[in-house]
Amino acid sequence: MDAVVLLSGGLDSYTAAAIAKSEGLTLSALTINYGQRHVRELNAARAVAATLGVRRHVEIDIDLSKFGGSALTSDVEVPKDRPCDALQIPVTYVPARNTIFLSLALGWAEVLGAGQIVIGVNALDYSGYPDCRPEFIRAFEDLAALATRVGVQGQRIQVATPLIALTKAQIIQRGVALGLDYGLTHSCYDPLPDGRPCRHCDSCVIRSHGFDAAGLRDPLLS
Amino acid sequence: MDAVVLLSGGLDSYTAAAIAKSEGLTLSALTINYGQRHVRELNAARAVAATLGVRRHVEIDIDLSKFGGSALTSDVEVPKDRPCDALQIPVTYVPARNTIFLSLALGWAEVLGAGQIVIGVNALDYSGYPDCRPEFIRAFEDLAALATRVGVQGQRIQVATPLIALTKAQIIQRGVALGLDYGLTHSCYDPLPDGRPCRHCDSCVIRSHGFDAAGLRDPLLS
Repeated sequence: MDAVVLLSGGLDSYTAAAIAKSEGLTLSALTINYGQRHVRELNAARAVAATLGVRRHVEIDIDLSKFGGSALTSDVEVPKDRPCDALQIPVTYVPARNTIFLSLALGWAEVLGAGQIVIGVNALDYSGYPDCRPEFIRAFEDLAALATRVGVQGQRIQVATPLIALTKAQIIQRGVALGLDYGLTHSCYDPLPDGRPCRHCDSCVIRSHGFDAAGLRDPLLS
Repeated sequence: MDAVVLLSGGLDSYTAAAIAKSEGLTLSALTINYGQRHVRELNAARAVAATLGVRRHVEIDIDLSKFGGSALTSDVEVPKDRPCDALQIPVTYVPARNTIFLSLALGWAEVLGAGQIVIGVNALDYSGYPDCRPEFIRAFEDLAALATRVGVQGQRIQVATPLIALTKAQIIQRGVALGLDYGLTHSCYDPLPDGRPCRHCDSCVIRSHGFDAAGLRDPLLS
């Protein structure tokens, strides 16, 4: 079966894609450049797509910074060294991001005749984003059934979330067991001028805790 | 109350926006350039936004032709002179278009603190698109409540569809009663080289029937 996988260049989407591939799905990768600061994510997405051997890789540019409202797409400072249990929604939240991403994946899935969309959302070690929760994903599947020609014809496009119930440590352990090279990925919200991760934004902190808890070393920091 | 209105430059979205404005909403207009053939729509959207006196007008480029799958975004021929009762979904269907458009409007609505999204969909004199139906709109509202920070905080963003139960003739009569200048709009899927409407695509045919049934003359054809 064909699947469209949302591939950001980060650790989670790489692992989600690899799990889908290990289950026999044929992958087409979709990367959205939404005007985020860290363009290095895009190079990481290309490297990850290549190593996964995806059938197609489409990159879509969409300048969400025109809306403002997020530290990832505007001049708001990315917060550093937030406590890990701070579960309020942070300024790095991009309004409606996963809704927009899934909508684009849905459009492409319909064209390709793909039966699945794969997204690396995670409801445990996440940053408190509302659009990473299982109830959001189920609501999107319901919408997709009404939104599309294939839905009207009775075919349901599933949204697969292989990571949704895993801790970051479990995600990393699963990926390492699949032989993934996390040195290809990029997670930092606010990298240093030379491209290395800042080690202090939410994304770096969560990644670092994940590698620590998995008892593994992050190849990006070696 | 603030509202984000999806403004295409066509007759329907202009009328939907004008109705919302007449009800006291403060409008911010969102126009999506999705790689459609008829770039004249964009100039029409600018003219319509100006005449409506919207507070803000944002244009977002997103190249859906990278996905293919529609006569509006690829090299497939736009069908001409289809019978009006041919209710199968035509090749001008753009996969997941309204899902993508509403998702973008949702992101901007959340940033602006807008309580409504206005979209000129119409379930009667339409072209058989699944994402113009009331059940699709309700499912999107349910999704929006789960997708956003404001939704988590208990605020529901409504999707207003003032045209959904009107015939094309009723839409035109309503707009004319509001003093709208339909000479500013653009509906044709496949305009002539000089920009005039082709008069034979689904959109031209539906528009023409609407003006006829309303007993009015289309200013674009004078």
